Amino acid sequence: MRASQFFLSTLKEAPADAEVVSHRLMLRAGMIKKVAAGIYSYLPIGLRSIRKIEEIVRQELVRAGAVELLMPVVQPAELWMESGRWYKMGPELLRVKDRHDRDFVIQPTSEEVIADIAREALRSYKQLPVNFFHIQTKFRDERRPRFGVMRAREFTMKDAYSFDRDEASGMTSYRAMFDAYERIFTRMGLRFRAVAADTGNIGGHASHEFQVIADTGEDAIAYCATSDYAANLELAEALPLIAHRAPASQSLARTPTPGKEKCEDVAALLGQPLARTVKSIVLAVDRRDRTVPQSADLWLLLLRGDHELNEVKASKVPGLNEGFRFATEAEIGAVFGCRPGYLGPIGTRAPVTVVADRTVAHMSDFICGANEEGYHLTGVNWGRDLPEPIVADLRNVVAGDPSPDGQGVLAIQRGIEVGHVFAGLPYAESMNLSYTDEKGQLRPMVLGCYGIGITRLLGAAIEQNHDDKGIIWPQAIAPFSVAVCPINYRQSAAVRQAADALYEELRAAGIDVILDDRGERPGAMFADWELIGVPHRFTLGERGLKTGEVEYVARRQLQPVMVPFAQASATLRDQTDR
Amino acid sequence: MRASQFFLSTLKEAPADAEVVSHRLMLRAGMIKKVAAGIYSYLPIGLRSIRKIEEIVRQELVRAGAVELLMPVVQPAELWMESGRWYKMGPELLRVKDRHDRDFVIQPTSEEVIADIAREALRSYKQLPVNFFHIQTKFRDERRPRFGVMRAREFTMKDAYSFDRDEASGMTSYRAMFDAYERIFTRMGLRFRAVAADTGNIGGHASHEFQVIADTGEDAIAYCATSDYAANLELAEALPLIAHRAPASQSLARTPTPGKEKCEDVAALLGQPLARTVKSIVLAVDRRDRTVPQSADLWLLLLRGDHELNEVKASKVPGLNEGFRFATEAEIGAVFGCRPGYLGPIGTRAPVTVVADRTVAHMSDFICGANEEGYHLTGVNWGRDLPEPIVADLRNVVAGDPSPDGQGVLAIQRGIEVGHVFAGLPYAESMNLSYTDEKGQLRPMVLGCYGIGITRLLGAAIEQNHDDKGIIWPQAIAPFSVAVCPINYRQSAAVRQAADALYEELRAAGIDVILDDRGERPGAMFADWELIGVPHRFTLGERGLKTGEVEYVARRQLQPVMVPFAQASATLRDQTDR
Repeated sequence: MRASQFFLSTLKEAPADAEVVSHRLMLRAGMIKKVAAGIYSYLPIGLRSIRKIEEIVRQELVRAGAVELLMPVVQPAELWMESGRWYKMGPELLRVKDRHDRDFVIQPTSEEVIADIAREALRSYKQLPVNFFHIQTKFRDERRPRFGVMRAREFTMKDAYSFDRDEASGMTSYRAMFDAYERIFTRMGLRFRAVAADTGNIGGHASHEFQVIADTGEDAIAYCATSDYAANLELAEALPLIAHRAPASQSLARTPTPGKEKCEDVAALLGQPLARTVKSIVLAVDRRDRTVPQSADLWLLLLRGDHELNEVKASKVPGLNEGFRFATEAEIGAVFGCRPGYLGPIGTRAPVTVVADRTVAHMSDFICGANEEGYHLTGVNWGRDLPEPIVADLRNVVAGDPSPDGQGVLAIQRGIEVGHVFAGLPYAESMNLSYTDEKGQLRPMVLGCYGIGITRLLGAAIEQNHDDKGIIWPQAIAPFSVAVCPINYRQSAAVRQAADALYEELRAAGIDVILDDRGERPGAMFADWELIGVPHRFTLGERGLKTGEVEYVARRQLQPVMVPFAQASATLRDQTDR
Repeated sequence: MRASQFFLSTLKEAPADAEVVSHRLMLRAGMIKKVAAGIYSYLPIGLRSIRKIEEIVRQELVRAGAVELLMPVVQPAELWMESGRWYKMGPELLRVKDRHDRDFVIQPTSEEVIADIAREALRSYKQLPVNFFHIQTKFRDERRPRFGVMRAREFTMKDAYSFDRDEASGMTSYRAMFDAYERIFTRMGLRFRAVAADTGNIGGHASHEFQVIADTGEDAIAYCATSDYAANLELAEALPLIAHRAPASQSLARTPTPGKEKCEDVAALLGQPLARTVKSIVLAVDRRDRTVPQSADLWLLLLRGDHELNEVKASKVPGLNEGFRFATEAEIGAVFGCRPGYLGPIGTRAPVTVVADRTVAHMSDFICGANEEGYHLTGVNWGRDLPEPIVADLRNVVAGDPSPDGQGVLAIQRGIEVGHVFAGLPYAESMNLSYTDEKGQLRPMVLGCYGIGITRLLGAAIEQNHDDKGIIWPQAIAPFSVAVCPINYRQSAAVRQAADALYEELRAAGIDVILDDRGERPGAMFADWELIGVPHRFTLGERGLKTGEVEYVARRQLQPVMVPFAQASATLRDQTDR
């Protein structure tokens, strides 16, 4: 491609509302233009990267046995009522009425439409397994779209749906997609991690997120450097940090701690380690029968003073798994006889259910609130001073925690979710997905679904790969692999001839090259290509040509090297994009 | 591709609501599945043809200098209010409110969004001309979607938009697109015609439609077999069929024609040729000032008895170009003193404006209604019996008419519009599209727009290319080029080996081949591939392999030929798809 026949539109400054670096760089590089909040046009340079991403995804999915089709953007509400999502989804589902006042949705995903195809076309065990995918425009009416393409309202997503005869076959399909995803993100040149994830409201029974590692990522990932354990922080199992509970060595004492409401302050006042303190978190579970005056049951969750509550884990405790909220100060006062800051499990006015985190359950001689303003209890011991609690994993893991697989310790890093695989979706029943087995019996199909955020990947790749000059594209998804930058292209016949020759040579070698024939000054040319992030650059000028040399610069290192003109193409073959 | 790893789903019968052959065949071949009225999923076999169509379009547009980008499906109403289309378009524009109650549209085309990109990015004459295109999902809420993908509500369209500095440059861009379209449809293997078209409500000043020729087409095209003249029937100029008016030879006579209201019947009764009769069509133009009792002016249009009114042409007559309707019987009675069937230009009760078609204006001694029930006038002559009329081209051309370019005679054929090019769009002012010229002066840009109905092309290609067994794809847009059909693939090792070898050989030659390894009976296999319309088929069986031969069948001819196994691949190279 010649730049004069392409469209480049770089900016010195990004608009002030671009909060994250990928958003700023995509705007400055002329990859996107905002059309409305969370809605973008993809300008030519941005679309080139999208097409490369799509093609890698397509190739690897086909290689994994999936078949591509295309489902519509505008989908009839009837199918969504059947699955129940019409009722379950909130305002993030964009609903629309047609001219005949019939209800439709702008698809955020296509479970219903693919189920409708599958239940008509797939009748026999002989036709299973099947995995369908499409790459299509999606819409999710985010309340607060932001971060450019990373939390947009309109976006491109690859969604795949597998149909299997039983759970074992379903897990084989799941594994095939998992492997395909690993190949996809590896081919894209991204540092990523597949992490065990919560199945959330999709409701399946196995789930992994594919996270592109980036310090600016929204998600926290716990992983073990010495094993392959990795999980979303929501899901990472926290083992007890104390193997066995030590015997009590102190007596229970009511200790004044005036004005010290936080564990840190109490520990400092008493000259004790923070790891000896226990914090109290009070949850309320509303009763179904709202006619009784006190309509909520209170639960007291105990965590070590330096730990944080994990609400996803709390929501899995029997009794809390139907829904909970944080208790109000009034509710707390009525049951504990005290305001927050001095709460604890001993001496409440009314019974509360006490759940201790695994580590707390193994503590002895610990410190907690006395349910009396200005006082804490020290030397508290399970069994002696209060009954044994319910024990559960309630906390977020922290760096240095033992890995749940017993193979080392955990570290925490941040990531951007770009893919998600789910096994065992609950649509077989609601969407009436069944097949006839060898014995002529109707049996429910087993469903999986598998998403990749195509346009979000642009942002994730940039969050991971950039410097102060701009984007540093991994070669596989760069808008162009190489920029040929002639100096005085329009003035010097020798430069023009050499640049055209190199351009044609690289093109003939199947390399995705752009010749910058715009006639810009060298500084402006270099700044553009460094901002856009093309991984390789050749600069040709009259001086170099006199000695038969061109300058090569790799975008990541930005260190110029002179190479003989005849070896320019070979130089490129020896480079990787790291 | 192996059929066992693909997804085929053919049907014996099409649903009863499929009215046209392409719709029936696409459903039966498993190319599409209906999701809602005018909304389809494209199943794998259909998507393959779409992708081939898209790729040809993309290649030729890039070759013509256009640059691809991608604009959103959901577009903010503000831009549409600016262009005025928010107000002008009716219920065919699908409107939607987001969660914050802001107005959006689901795009039918993207003039507004591209104009918004262009006015920000294109500031100087140095940046022009530019031509942007995208291939994207569109929605048009048709009142009565039908004919499958040919009049769908959701469809895929390529739309391109050119920006030029002046009209001359704009016409160069227009011509480049026109030429690209000719290459596109030629590469697709379609018989088509570029026809001059009315600019309609897009309001440009040059326009051509690209029509795929098919007897079942909705549009009529007038063309000259001995020149390159072709025009949509709406626009084709009708020359007078009589070069000069002959002098009057009969006297005016009131002649009884009881019960004969049609020109055919009058001519038969009087023993005269139909070409001697003149028919009367009464139009009404409503007055702006609706306070006066008679609020419409009546116009009398005169056509030869064997000709048909062309309303598009009538709408260009000064005085009718602000809008007209057919007059009511009451209005006609009041002005003509007679009911329809015996109307004419002589002796009306109130003045009417008379407009004669060019041919009628050259007639003499003609026959028309006498404005008296049961009577016609014969021997009518302009100038002698009534004043000279306003003369205009008012009629549809018919086969045998002289071609307007003077190069022969016209023929009529039917076509399906698959592309449309427009020059000189009126958005520069409303969307504030200007650039700075060499002298630093702000000047308006000249816009063109260019559409191709990607998904509609599937239907058009099939309407043109099918027989009673199914679709006959032109090779360039066939879902597969060749089907290899082994008989007893699962039972015979020799067949399996030979089929696999031929499959791999064709694949290695870059041919898009499908190996039917499903193990179906030969009859079922052949019926499937003839229905799906793959242009070439090889059949391998044990009997043929004994003599070292395979059977080759071209889909269009369906005549089996035995060819030596070693020459199978070469046989294919010698075939065209016609």
